[in-house]
Amino acid sequence: MYDIIVVGGGVAAFSSALFAARRGLEILVIAKDIGGQANYTDLIENYPGLPEIGGLELVSRIKQQAEAFGAKVLIAEVTKIKQHEQSFVATAYNRQYKSKALILAFGKTPKDLAVPGEEQFKGRGVSYCATCDAPLCKNKTVAVAGIGDLSLEAAILLSHFAKKVYVLSKTDKLHGHLSLIKALHRRKNVEFLPFKQVLEIKGSKQLSSMRLRDLNTGVETSLPIEAIFVELGYVVHSEFLGNLLDLEQDGQVRINADHSTSVAGLFAAGDVTDRPYKQAVISAGEGASAALAAFDWLMRQKGSTGLTSDWTQIKRVNR
Amino acid sequence: MYDIIVVGGGVAAFSSALFAARRGLEILVIAKDIGGQANYTDLIENYPGLPEIGGLELVSRIKQQAEAFGAKVLIAEVTKIKQHEQSFVATAYNRQYKSKALILAFGKTPKDLAVPGEEQFKGRGVSYCATCDAPLCKNKTVAVAGIGDLSLEAAILLSHFAKKVYVLSKTDKLHGHLSLIKALHRRKNVEFLPFKQVLEIKGSKQLSSMRLRDLNTGVETSLPIEAIFVELGYVVHSEFLGNLLDLEQDGQVRINADHSTSVAGLFAAGDVTDRPYKQAVISAGEGASAALAAFDWLMRQKGSTGLTSDWTQIKRVNR
Repeated sequence: MYDIIVVGGGVAAFSSALFAARRGLEILVIAKDIGGQANYTDLIENYPGLPEIGGLELVSRIKQQAEAFGAKVLIAEVTKIKQHEQSFVATAYNRQYKSKALILAFGKTPKDLAVPGEEQFKGRGVSYCATCDAPLCKNKTVAVAGIGDLSLEAAILLSHFAKKVYVLSKTDKLHGHLSLIKALHRRKNVEFLPFKQVLEIKGSKQLSSMRLRDLNTGVETSLPIEAIFVELGYVVHSEFLGNLLDLEQDGQVRINADHSTSVAGLFAAGDVTDRPYKQAVISAGEGASAALAAFDWLMRQKGSTGLTSDWTQIKRVNR
Repeated sequence: MYDIIVVGGGVAAFSSALFAARRGLEILVIAKDIGGQANYTDLIENYPGLPEIGGLELVSRIKQQAEAFGAKVLIAEVTKIKQHEQSFVATAYNRQYKSKALILAFGKTPKDLAVPGEEQFKGRGVSYCATCDAPLCKNKTVAVAGIGDLSLEAAILLSHFAKKVYVLSKTDKLHGHLSLIKALHRRKNVEFLPFKQVLEIKGSKQLSSMRLRDLNTGVETSLPIEAIFVELGYVVHSEFLGNLLDLEQDGQVRINADHSTSVAGLFAAGDVTDRPYKQAVISAGEGASAALAAFDWLMRQKGSTGLTSDWTQIKRVNR
């Protein structure tokens, strides 16, 4: 029986493990893989205190800090979480792990195009993060397949690096905010391809072309490209939670100011929550906060005083 | 006319300056001094990504990052903020600085004992943070003057380092949660001094004694100590804001999920907000979030699309 199980393997997960373990709690982190969103970023230059750090390097460091304070890490996919006799039971690879409190920090996942070849060329031409990978496309020919402003923003950014940027749309026009569409039209190396659907991504070692269908004429063509940016947004895969707690329609976890959820003892942090902005340091802060809230809750369950010095001290001052 | 003025000089202030400046905005940080709460901490060991870093060192690093992206820093005390024709006007040393948006990140201040000698020996025996300075008290004789659980928690922590810990109370007993009082009584090197009021803190280079009055008998005595921990909680000095925006009764700034306040264009981050937990990385995350919310607000004021890729992408996905 652990004090807290943390589900996730990114910045938020290991930050919460660090803060909880430092309070002397027994912590188990169950992570499908290590890195989370940071895996999609080669270089983070906006993490306060660390001017330039690789995404995975940052997560590895926080993981080490958490482990130094005693947190245990298990690489496995949690497929079910249920409540049983005032504890939480997480199932991973048919084994069950129990804890008194639980922190959800399993992040979000970029949405796939769902075409043949996509899986094969992930990281070798197929990218889901223009902000991360645009600088790697100097003088290359690239395509953007996505929706609305996401697609427009990615194409504008890419046009500053790539030789040529194709922007695909399934209709006759670009969708999104007018200011972005205008900005895109000013970029000379951007070409708009209307009525196009991606059928397949092809190549040998690296991606080299994609097969397209013209939705107006039905004609299929092949277009040589070196990279494709899929900008369909993200999904939060919280289906495995069933109806354990209140979720937003899009799967994000609804949290209170202290990162508690609709279920007592259950907390959430990072990209998985309904907080608006998603950044590494925001996830780190949310992880810390969720851990302290979980600690406070565990103390109060034992009839103890909870986290006085951390959060009520301001309220105690007579003014 | 700046895009954003940030009021404050700690982790939250420079983190917000970093994120806002990186978006290409004109930023002015007005700080009374550099460091904020981090100044009270010699060593931070729970900042994710930086296993051991000095408090001031951390703030200096984030300040440098913000300046590298173009943020300007002015050392001055803001004594007034008002709204004038859809902009904010901050007064510091009788000069006025204008901005379109403003971020409040001026933190909190530990409450003083308000006795002679206290100012003189700050950082040389007088401490306001047991969590920060307890490890520096190995084999020393120390005193705790404070209130309730804050005082009890500090004394318990100190008893693991110091040779002797005096705990002062103005009444005949200790106040606070029973579990903490019991825990304190189990510590053999803790001595409870009832009915004691601190009159003066004395020493030459370092603090060496305090003068006490017994509130029961009226007798004044001198007690040799090497450090005193003042645990009276913190105050948020938001009086200079007048009735510019909604504040909690204790002066904390009420914020929404995206760090906006009750006034359009006005945001807040860090210890000054009503978020429950106060830690360096939480402030860093809040600063980032407030900056992105301010950026989004400024874009929307210009009729632009706001921060699509940062915060609405999840919501846009069709499921």
